[in-house]
Amino acid sequence: MTSPVAPHTPRVALLGLGDIGAGWAALAAAHGWTTALFDTDVHAADRATGLVARRARALAALGRADADTVERGLRRVKVARSLLQAVGDADWVIESVPEDLALKQRVLENVGQVARPGVIYTSSSSGLPMSEIAARYKDQAHCAVAHPLNPPELIPLVEVVPGKFTAQETLDTVRDWLRALGRIPIVLKREVPGNAVGRIAAAVWRECIDLVLTGVMDVDDIDRAVSLGPGLGWAAGGPHLTYHLGAGDGGVEAFLQQLLQSFEIWWGSLAQWTKLEPEQVHALTAQIEKAYGAKVDALREARDRRLAAILKALEAARKG
Amino acid sequence: MTSPVAPHTPRVALLGLGDIGAGWAALAAAHGWTTALFDTDVHAADRATGLVARRARALAALGRADADTVERGLRRVKVARSLLQAVGDADWVIESVPEDLALKQRVLENVGQVARPGVIYTSSSSGLPMSEIAARYKDQAHCAVAHPLNPPELIPLVEVVPGKFTAQETLDTVRDWLRALGRIPIVLKREVPGNAVGRIAAAVWRECIDLVLTGVMDVDDIDRAVSLGPGLGWAAGGPHLTYHLGAGDGGVEAFLQQLLQSFEIWWGSLAQWTKLEPEQVHALTAQIEKAYGAKVDALREARDRRLAAILKALEAARKG
Repeated sequence: MTSPVAPHTPRVALLGLGDIGAGWAALAAAHGWTTALFDTDVHAADRATGLVARRARALAALGRADADTVERGLRRVKVARSLLQAVGDADWVIESVPEDLALKQRVLENVGQVARPGVIYTSSSSGLPMSEIAARYKDQAHCAVAHPLNPPELIPLVEVVPGKFTAQETLDTVRDWLRALGRIPIVLKREVPGNAVGRIAAAVWRECIDLVLTGVMDVDDIDRAVSLGPGLGWAAGGPHLTYHLGAGDGGVEAFLQQLLQSFEIWWGSLAQWTKLEPEQVHALTAQIEKAYGAKVDALREARDRRLAAILKALEAARKG
Repeated sequence: MTSPVAPHTPRVALLGLGDIGAGWAALAAAHGWTTALFDTDVHAADRATGLVARRARALAALGRADADTVERGLRRVKVARSLLQAVGDADWVIESVPEDLALKQRVLENVGQVARPGVIYTSSSSGLPMSEIAARYKDQAHCAVAHPLNPPELIPLVEVVPGKFTAQETLDTVRDWLRALGRIPIVLKREVPGNAVGRIAAAVWRECIDLVLTGVMDVDDIDRAVSLGPGLGWAAGGPHLTYHLGAGDGGVEAFLQQLLQSFEIWWGSLAQWTKLEPEQVHALTAQIEKAYGAKVDALREARDRRLAAILKALEAARKG
């Protein structure tokens, strides 16, 4: 058994080793933490060690982690062969299994049978409420949603969403641990479908899908437009601040006087559909594949390089 | 009369000297172009010289323009005392008056009476169609929307939207000139209310306003969540690419298999209102004012510093 890196550094167990679970693992390794990985899918478990090592070392290469700490952390990553082995001595269990309520409930119930009392349990769910995930769990006070974005090891935001019975102490601890991992936790006041980010992202994507399906713009033009346009403003300031600064010295009040009428026209004309028909899914997928082809690895590497560059730039600008 | 800086550099006339017009002027000056400014509001015209000089010099200070070229360009900025004086010898008229269809129509009709034949006319409209703005104008072939974001001198995207009768040659020329100003023009295939960016931004803002008004998050937490979360992904890649890279090697097809159901739940639960009642405007304004106070100048300066830093980082990462 290894000992924690520093006092109060939790032993982490990661359940579910898809893209998000592997990202959490890379992040924990990059901080030298002791981490146990578990997935019921043997294939996922088998490839996890290599995947986590690659992503943690990529963090160092991008200047987002210290190379020596990464190697020390990677030596402390163990793939567990059972749930008991993974969570038996964990302080913090991070669940990142697929977005399926029944599955997430089952995983938590199983954890309840083998974890030590008082274990902190967070779900990476992008939109399910912890009150439902933990509906049949005995220790709801120690559970919360902690939803990272993809890739979790690069994007700092983690949305923390308390369930109805989550204790304040749990939120405080989760926040401390997330900050120790270099994350920026933001706590929602209550549960809503999709948390905050999923809702905002769904609103964006619906409109961007609609622009493709109605033939106003191609996939890559939309992505370039967002990334060279409003995406820059949102990264530099967020939506409310953008409009507070959008009408000279008068602030948001002057902005709304000038432009609320335009926004109301646009709100009235935005896409309203809530489902994609199979042929629409097919058309969208075909257009995205056409724009980007099968070069997922190369595209991700380039995107991650841009993400790391933006993060460094923002950190420098905020200090300056 | 001054001569153009280089062959094919257009003489520019800027109509409307609010935030957007002043930004265009700062951008033109930063490229050493000859620029005439006009506003029927004498107060706006009087303060324009100082405002444009400050914003153009800020570009140089942020490393986004050459200081000598800025000074040369500022010497070529003239505030015109009449519409005739402003547009009489212009190659390119850029209209940035308030977002009011009747006003924009009137301005274009007045320009038609004093500009030389064949003048290129672009409107900075964030959402009105050129087909309507130019409905009563004789030379619609030379008109298009060229919508920049705020601040136009920093954010590279310019949405170019042809009207029904815009000539391809006009689009080509406008694109060339925008590129010469360091902008990145993206052409929409047809007119839609709010162009592309206004629609996407309206979708984001509606959801962010709703999260405030329903008490899920405070204004500054939402802005931080967007800017440290999805805003980074959008700046680094755009929405479609983000999801193409969101589910491992399987691309967007795998992503939709895993998450379309979640998105459909969220789409079904997003805000649907299309108007803000006066008391909602009041509540929103109060919360944004509370979050950011009256420090508009300092906030804008800090935001612009972050924008410039992100732009430099992205340019370096794209070269690397």
